Amino acid sequence: MKQINLEPGMLYDGSQIKPMWAFQRLGLKGSSIVSWRGPMNIQPDELIDYEDVGLEIKSDEMLHFIIEHFDAQPADMRLCYHRQRILVMIVQNLLREIGIITHRKGDDLYCDGGKLSVSIASCSVSSMKIHFAMNITTQGTPENIKTAGLMECSENLDMLKVSKLSDNISKTYIDEILDIEEDISKTRVF
Amino acid sequence: MKQINLEPGMLYDGSQIKPMWAFQRLGLKGSSIVSWRGPMNIQPDELIDYEDVGLEIKSDEMLHFIIEHFDAQPADMRLCYHRQRILVMIVQNLLREIGIITHRKGDDLYCDGGKLSVSIASCSVSSMKIHFAMNITTQGTPENIKTAGLMECSENLDMLKVSKLSDNISKTYIDEILDIEEDISKTRVF
Amino acid sequence: MKQINLEPGMLYDGSQIKPMWAFQRLGLKGSSIVSWRGPMNIQPDELIDYEDVGLEIKSDEMLHFIIEHFDAQPADMRLCYHRQRILVMIVQNLLREIGIITHRKGDDLYCDGGKLSVSIASCSVSSMKIHFAMNITTQGTPENIKTAGLMECSENLDMLKVSKLSDNISKTYIDEILDIEEDISKTRVF
Amino acid sequence: MKQINLEPGMLYDGSQIKPMWAFQRLGLKGSSIVSWRGPMNIQPDELIDYEDVGLEIKSDEMLHFIIEHFDAQPADMRLCYHRQRILVMIVQNLLREIGIITHRKGDDLYCDGGKLSVSIASCSVSSMKIHFAMNITTQGTPENIKTAGLMECSENLDMLKVSKLSDNISKTYIDEILDIEEDISKTRVF
Amino acid sequence: MKQINLEPGMLYDGSQIKPMWAFQRLGLKGSSIVSWRGPMNIQPDELIDYEDVGLEIKSDEMLHFIIEHFDAQPADMRLCYHRQRILVMIVQNLLREIGIITHRKGDDLYCDGGKLSVSIASCSVSSMKIHFAMNITTQGTPENIKTAGLMECSENLDMLKVSKLSDNISKTYIDEILDIEEDISKTRVF
Amino acid sequence: MKQINLEPGMLYDGSQIKPMWAFQRLGLKGSSIVSWRGPMNIQPDELIDYEDVGLEIKSDEMLHFIIEHFDAQPADMRLCYHRQRILVMIVQNLLREIGIITHRKGDDLYCDGGKLSVSIASCSVSSMKIHFAMNITTQGTPENIKTAGLMECSENLDMLKVSKLSDNISKTYIDEILDIEEDISKTRVF
Repeated sequence: MKQINLEPGMLYDGSQIKPMWAFQRLGLKGSSIVSWRGPMNIQPDELIDYEDVGLEIKSDEMLHFIIEHFDAQPADMRLCYHRQRILVMIVQNLLREIGIITHRKGDDLYCDGGKLSVSIASCSVSSMKIHFAMNITTQGTPENIKTAGLMECSENLDMLKVSKLSDNISKTYIDEILDIEEDISKTRVF
Repeated sequence: MKQINLEPGMLYDGSQIKPMWAFQRLGLKGSSIVSWRGPMNIQPDELIDYEDVGLEIKSDEMLHFIIEHFDAQPADMRLCYHRQRILVMIVQNLLREIGIITHRKGDDLYCDGGKLSVSIASCSVSSMKIHFAMNITTQGTPENIKTAGLMECSENLDMLKVSKLSDNISKTYIDEILDIEEDISKTRVF
Repeated sequence: MKQINLEPGMLYDGSQIKPMWAFQRLGLKGSSIVSWRGPMNIQPDELIDYEDVGLEIKSDEMLHFIIEHFDAQPADMRLCYHRQRILVMIVQNLLREIGIITHRKGDDLYCDGGKLSVSIASCSVSSMKIHFAMNITTQGTPENIKTAGLMECSENLDMLKVSKLSDNISKTYIDEILDIEEDISKTRVF
Repeated sequence: MKQINLEPGMLYDGSQIKPMWAFQRLGLKGSSIVSWRGPMNIQPDELIDYEDVGLEIKSDEMLHFIIEHFDAQPADMRLCYHRQRILVMIVQNLLREIGIITHRKGDDLYCDGGKLSVSIASCSVSSMKIHFAMNITTQGTPENIKTAGLMECSENLDMLKVSKLSDNISKTYIDEILDIEEDISKTRVF
Repeated sequence: MKQINLEPGMLYDGSQIKPMWAFQRLGLKGSSIVSWRGPMNIQPDELIDYEDVGLEIKSDEMLHFIIEHFDAQPADMRLCYHRQRILVMIVQNLLREIGIITHRKGDDLYCDGGKLSVSIASCSVSSMKIHFAMNITTQGTPENIKTAGLMECSENLDMLKVSKLSDNISKTYIDEILDIEEDISKTRVF
Repeated sequence: MKQINLEPGMLYDGSQIKPMWAFQRLGLKGSSIVSWRGPMNIQPDELIDYEDVGLEIKSDEMLHFIIEHFDAQPADMRLCYHRQRILVMIVQNLLREIGIITHRKGDDLYCDGGKLSVSIASCSVSSMKIHFAMNITTQGTPENIKTAGLMECSENLDMLKVSKLSDNISKTYIDEILDIEEDISKTRVF
């Protein structure tokens, strides 16, 4: 599974959740996790979560992760959402290690009662995709709901630490998935 | 998904990881999570984890969970191990809430450097099984490795709190699985 | 699995067979069976059965059922068509109980040589859909084929009985699916 | 899918439900339905239905069907039980055509309140198996439950008609499965 | 699995790789292999292989094969690409038998260093598709890459031999798939 | 996927086809291909191919390959047999490159009309296994069938060349499987 950190700045507009985005834009073959810092503004016709229809989903600066898995063929939404939950729980644990305490509800993280993150999973018949992103600040987030940003939740966070956090999240996620695969190969079945 | 708490005392000897145990012994049909307090002593021929061959796996008193899922047909070891990881992360979070800080490595929890838990997943073609158990005390645990028990890791734990913890773990796990299922049914796919 | 009866009148235009229709229009999460009385007029670009290309598919008043299953991930057309057949056989049996004798050919029911019903199954990668509908009368059905309606096939049918029939079909189908799931959990595998 | 009628007389002892029985005993490769008349006496260690543990399952003369499917890989208990239900509903309809009215409850048929049939499904990772059998008479059936036999349920049944019924059941089942497969190949998916 | 040889002349424009093409255009139900001689000119919006974006994919006369499989439900890209490789290896062997030596690289065949063939696999949730085609001559092939044609690779090939080759490829492929299915039904599993 | 060459001499007695053999005996986690030179003598109760019941399956010196795949969960006999065929076709091509011409029939290779190889595939719910072996000489092969050995089929083969061949087979097989996985991740689906 490949890990890529992109230069800051790319807008997340919802197109990145589409299958094969990593190959079409970055030339990546196989499973991958791609991360970057950048704004978000999802076009209504790129919406994946039907519960979000009619909502503004935007932020001026977020830490984004796009994951694509090709291991399960055909792709499986159930497995994909389990991986999403594992990712969110990994993020929650790594945030705690740098002093940011969050509350998790499904696939959302909250900090001081403000919504810190967005996430969705989806798939085609051949790949499983996950998007997860956290506000770095609350700038540009929707005004009708209470939001939170990593900067406001921590006293001494800087971009270097955000960068380390990002790297740590990707690596820990990859390790967890590999660890699960290894466990399968040492387990008796009935 | 059914939740059952058994009377304390039943020995975990490895037979409970077998498919259909919940139906054969408890008459439970469908997916279930069963918990109880009791000793553990796994017979060598009941070993599921081939890495444990030759090891003593025992303890005088543990908090046990046996989960069986019938939703994915045919059963899928990959999904099963993802669920096991989600269970262990849920346990870790609920322990923290009652003041017990643990370190997770794969499917194992450690407290003060001592191994607190054991866990395995397995499946037949029609069901997925998970066993997870934590030492309540270190009594009766193998002498050749450092172990930990919930009682030693907490200053003010009693059986009533262990019982609440047990109930909380089962309920939180069931809610998480249901929540994932609901997320699938509101998500656009490609 | 949720059961919903809608107010009479909604046109079946083929859009209801699309995955997630029940969530998008009715807010239903999870597997469901939705029934209602209303006309049918399928738009050519909403056709699912390629054998129907070029045919008129319409009726002034039908008893409709829309089923969506999320239990099998990824969704499976083979399983979906087996469920469709089970549904049609259940309908045939319940019609017989109220004195309407039909002949089944694949997924079609015939009464006195007239085509009484239409049905299709389809799926996306995450859900399985079934549409089944019976003419209540032959009004508005295509003129180039012989059709039948429940009213013409029975001497003493009224809207109250149609309503009870509808309810009975939904409940019997749900029970059958649940019964199958329970059978899995008591069966030894090899 | 091959259809075979065996000479009368073979005892059904539960071994026939095992995967690959048709190849090992009859040299049949691929999916098949095998039928014959003969007694039944299931050995306790050949029990597949854990609900039957401790029960006597026997009869002096039954009409047996053993089905094996290799089309779904890996084999799927859910699909297998759906096929079993379709088989039982086909049998019920064909019995009605020769004047035998039965009541179905899950996978059991009852005639005049007496249990007429037994059935089980099972699978290994590579094949799906179904056994279905009806008492031809009640001779040799367990005394502690009310049973029924085809002969007692019909006024003018003879062995020739039983033979035709048997043939009809096999052919109708095979046609239904083929018909489903053809429907898949003309259906648009999302 | 049905085998069809079409009259020469049909343009391969990429639309034939779509699921259900064989049913919609030829009325074929079930798995099939269709072959014909004709030109190729793939429209950019019909591209399946994202690696080919921006490339010209054309030839004046090729020997085409379009395969559709419905046996695996849901369809599986991994299985589909394995079948494509088996097809290409079968072609390579049959070419050798008529004196045409090729070099295989993935799913491409080369003759004297010139690209002889194109191939792609794809699927929807309900069917698996393969397109494989060889240049009969190099006429009309892209000028920026070295290509080869069957005619140039062989000294004594004529249209009759191409026709026999085509037939042989289809039959050998069908036999191989059937042979695999039979092997499954005689093999013990664990 | 790991590649291991063992020291010569280990008897293939059929136990090596069992799932997890590579982990239990060699400590290998994950998918692997293991090769070695050694005799074969399969115990009747280790038979996997029911068509071989009653046959002697033995040879004094063979080149063995044992493959285990964990990528498809649950394991799939159909995929496994497709991989076996790909392996056999790879072997046939690599033999030709060193001057040994063989004829393939299903999963068997013949040289000068003598049976050169044996092969079987099998799986549990969590892994897919393949055994393939070629006689190095005909010594110790069954007397009642005509057999062939690599040494007799080639004029100038020595153990060094056999060793290179073995290595080449393993590497080529691994590359092919990886190549297929990469193709999936660049292909549009419907």
